[in-house]
Amino acid sequence: MKNSYSGKVLALCGGVGGAKLAWGLAQMLAPKQLTIAVNTGDDFEHFGLHISPDIDTVMYTLAGINNSELGWGLAGESWQCMEAMTALGGDSWFRLGDRDMATHLLRTQWLAQGKSLSEVTAHLCERLNIAHTVVPMSDDSVRTWVDTDEGILPFQHYFVRAQCAPVAKAVLYADAENAKPNPAILALLNEQNLRTIIICPSNPLLSIGPILALPGLPEAIKNSKAKVFVVSPLIKGQALKGPTAKMMRELAIPTDSTAIAAFYAEVADVLIIDESDANDADRIPIATYICKTLMKTDADKIALAREILARTRI
Amino acid sequence: MKNSYSGKVLALCGGVGGAKLAWGLAQMLAPKQLTIAVNTGDDFEHFGLHISPDIDTVMYTLAGINNSELGWGLAGESWQCMEAMTALGGDSWFRLGDRDMATHLLRTQWLAQGKSLSEVTAHLCERLNIAHTVVPMSDDSVRTWVDTDEGILPFQHYFVRAQCAPVAKAVLYADAENAKPNPAILALLNEQNLRTIIICPSNPLLSIGPILALPGLPEAIKNSKAKVFVVSPLIKGQALKGPTAKMMRELAIPTDSTAIAAFYAEVADVLIIDESDANDADRIPIATYICKTLMKTDADKIALAREILARTRI
Repeated sequence: MKNSYSGKVLALCGGVGGAKLAWGLAQMLAPKQLTIAVNTGDDFEHFGLHISPDIDTVMYTLAGINNSELGWGLAGESWQCMEAMTALGGDSWFRLGDRDMATHLLRTQWLAQGKSLSEVTAHLCERLNIAHTVVPMSDDSVRTWVDTDEGILPFQHYFVRAQCAPVAKAVLYADAENAKPNPAILALLNEQNLRTIIICPSNPLLSIGPILALPGLPEAIKNSKAKVFVVSPLIKGQALKGPTAKMMRELAIPTDSTAIAAFYAEVADVLIIDESDANDADRIPIATYICKTLMKTDADKIALAREILARTRI
Repeated sequence: MKNSYSGKVLALCGGVGGAKLAWGLAQMLAPKQLTIAVNTGDDFEHFGLHISPDIDTVMYTLAGINNSELGWGLAGESWQCMEAMTALGGDSWFRLGDRDMATHLLRTQWLAQGKSLSEVTAHLCERLNIAHTVVPMSDDSVRTWVDTDEGILPFQHYFVRAQCAPVAKAVLYADAENAKPNPAILALLNEQNLRTIIICPSNPLLSIGPILALPGLPEAIKNSKAKVFVVSPLIKGQALKGPTAKMMRELAIPTDSTAIAAFYAEVADVLIIDESDANDADRIPIATYICKTLMKTDADKIALAREILARTRI
């Protein structure tokens, strides 16, 4: 299944959609070829535990133990703790699975021992037998907040507790200005051998925005020798998962491929759009490649990964 | 089932054995009559969670949801989180049940919000529909350590992780000298209506020792108008559960009723010993009452509670 691609690849991603492509890339590339930099803007503390939803989704997906029905968490999960929590009248809006809990406990313990989030993530990947490299976008805390008609809400409160119901006015990345990009990412961006950067089909505002808000990271991407591919998260002008489309409407950003191209104008070399959005191609000011970006099956994920890697060689 | 006892009762207790008698007392007394003050010397932080093993055992026992086979935790518990933790190579020596986890999460969340351990315990009791009053011995941190031939070990490391294997040289109650007894306990000790204080059949060194190490508490007990009953934890000179007997041997304390009487000499009015230890009675320097203290059935627990309450009236 490995193709003839040589060189290294950096993928930037958030949760579900991004994780699918990351999995596809992992099937195509040797462990040392692929680094996946993951959004931590929606990390939060809950019941004293440090929860990193996007890192967990990426890890579980790469390990093949993700819950594809839910789109998050572990396959075959049980919910005894949450049932007991509900009976006790505690917060149950953020569903913590019993087995998933072990990840949060261990991360919290290791962070309390002074390990960085990068070290913790590397340890967890090792324990989960993940061969490719997964790194948090930063070891510093960046928190995504959504300014809404009901006030400024922490991301998980907006996204999970309020089910994105409040009207979004702006997205804020708190403390991003003081956060350092993960040094592993910066080092990779400097490597001559880095040939491809892929911005996965994750939510631009919520998943990739926090990564690009890290001081110096957009410049480092631009200065890299690698070709930067953005995979549009839109299918027929709609976000597949999550509140992208609703938010973009509320923030008065057109929900079409040109808006995606504009969002990534500073860093993108090529925009990859779905066949269903082919009509947008003429209006996109950068190189555009049309293919099937909808990933329903494992074969779809591998095919998309292969298409992108093939484009690098052109 | 309520008897004709009037007035109030304060029970001091640790985990399993003490909780059984506390349950028996709760069957005999109206909610306002019974306060159970619980050892927190074996509380600890694990994975960032605040765990109060004795409070949990008492609450679960009073709520009728305790796991009587294990002697701790919840009946019908599942262990998915611990299984996942073991797979991840994390600490699994302290077994955290999936449903039990909800208690630890909620306690940790509430403490982080600034609530005292007393407030947290009262809330949890309310949620568990426990009518009688359960209070931690103190809202301040007191930690039991065991000085052993392998060094000074935190209590849970000695007791659970090392299975009491190291040879005990001394028991220490760290920070006890700076801790305040729970004001609710002190207030109750001053009430004219408090007629009976019961030191439950818990481990003297590990469960009751931390309570009596709180500055002013032994004096307050002595100065109270109430009669102080100590229920010996020994049956035929052996501790029923836990390491009492082994520890007492290692600390060169005779494992018989006279040693129990000596341990509590400062506060006890009456020592209650099991029928099987009746021969010790002549050598005990304080009032002694012999009855069946072994509590195998619910009827045993109620019978022992009734016997003690009946003695108060003599």
